Amino acid sequence: MSGILQVVGMGPGNPDLLTLRAARILATVEVVAFFAKRGRPGHARSIAAAHLNPAAEELRFEYPYTTEIDVDDPRYEPGIRAFYEAAAAIVAARLDAGQDVALLCEGDPFFYGSAMYVFDRLHATHATAITPGITSMSGCWAQARLPMTHGDDVLTVLPGTLDAESLGTRLADSDAAVIMKVGRNLPKIRTALQSAGLADRALYVERGTMQDGRMMPLASLDEERAPYFSLVLVPGRQRAR
Amino acid sequence: MSGILQVVGMGPGNPDLLTLRAARILATVEVVAFFAKRGRPGHARSIAAAHLNPAAEELRFEYPYTTEIDVDDPRYEPGIRAFYEAAAAIVAARLDAGQDVALLCEGDPFFYGSAMYVFDRLHATHATAITPGITSMSGCWAQARLPMTHGDDVLTVLPGTLDAESLGTRLADSDAAVIMKVGRNLPKIRTALQSAGLADRALYVERGTMQDGRMMPLASLDEERAPYFSLVLVPGRQRAR
Repeated sequence: MSGILQVVGMGPGNPDLLTLRAARILATVEVVAFFAKRGRPGHARSIAAAHLNPAAEELRFEYPYTTEIDVDDPRYEPGIRAFYEAAAAIVAARLDAGQDVALLCEGDPFFYGSAMYVFDRLHATHATAITPGITSMSGCWAQARLPMTHGDDVLTVLPGTLDAESLGTRLADSDAAVIMKVGRNLPKIRTALQSAGLADRALYVERGTMQDGRMMPLASLDEERAPYFSLVLVPGRQRAR
Repeated sequence: MSGILQVVGMGPGNPDLLTLRAARILATVEVVAFFAKRGRPGHARSIAAAHLNPAAEELRFEYPYTTEIDVDDPRYEPGIRAFYEAAAAIVAARLDAGQDVALLCEGDPFFYGSAMYVFDRLHATHATAITPGITSMSGCWAQARLPMTHGDDVLTVLPGTLDAESLGTRLADSDAAVIMKVGRNLPKIRTALQSAGLADRALYVERGTMQDGRMMPLASLDEERAPYFSLVLVPGRQRAR
């Protein structure tokens, strides 16, 4: 009897925004797996802390690098692929031994989540179940009390890693937009928003729903580089009715 | 002392996908408000049932019409606006009397939610707090075990009410797409997906995460009209790493 791979969304950061299902899985699971940056507790693991079965065995997977090697560096992709291969093999061994494994993921697992890279390798050979999570964008627009999409607004979700021209064109073609992966792409994102005439509507949110979070109009932000947990919200039409 | 308007996301349908915060608000709130179709219990109210304070007073707001009058009919917009005006006035009276009111909303309130039309009328004059919810799209792609966006995929959320040409152009320009408000727009959505070369990748999900939900490749669906709680998912690149 093989175990089940439970891929569990941890939500945007505040442990209060876990789902009832996620909390129940955490409270009872035998083995919990998560990703973490070297020397850090791991964001998903921190969100889970208050709800996790104290007897659960922990599988901690440390990224070989996060920003130390550039994504354009030829070493980047092979190293990351090898990392996910190894993580998947370790999880698979537990499943094959009949243990259920909860693989934690910040936000919603199937929305830009790292957990997909383990799921992608195991779903054809093992039983899997996905618990969706509150996305970071939902957490951020709720905290900002910023209605995003009314009626027939089109929403576009854009990674800040796109080039400035693509970003600008797609922004101009949307009613509402969310820009993820802001980080060092911030200057380019500003340029794209300006070219689309949306610079004044953009809101910057950092560590949304977390205790040390902050938010402000993007136009008021002085920095040239944002931390990983930040995004830019451009709301659609306001008060459509 | 005025009360607080708590706008609470109820998630995609399964009560297990409520957040811990939403469940706590429901268990303690004095007044609960929700929208419902005439003659129906109300979808948000049904999701809340197992968690709702039994002593809570209920404010039920019945839509004057849902599909009986066409959105293009000149009576539609004024009637809907008057409906939201009246609902906001009733909620405001409770807040002014010092009571907190939990206004329930399916999915995530600020993502195409009806509750925004009450929030829009009250946020400038009353204290508000928003609890995000799992969106219907997250619930559906989790249940379908369908990873949606990897790496720098662009996701576009499109209301099925757009014209076929706009739908087709925007679909062709996205890596991943979600089409909301399928209903009687189904034939047009099929045409747009075909013109974008995406007909074979589209998955149809009806009443996702609910007990009587179903899903299938859109190409296998015979019907010409879908119920309100349905959407179409077009996943982005699969296994990017």
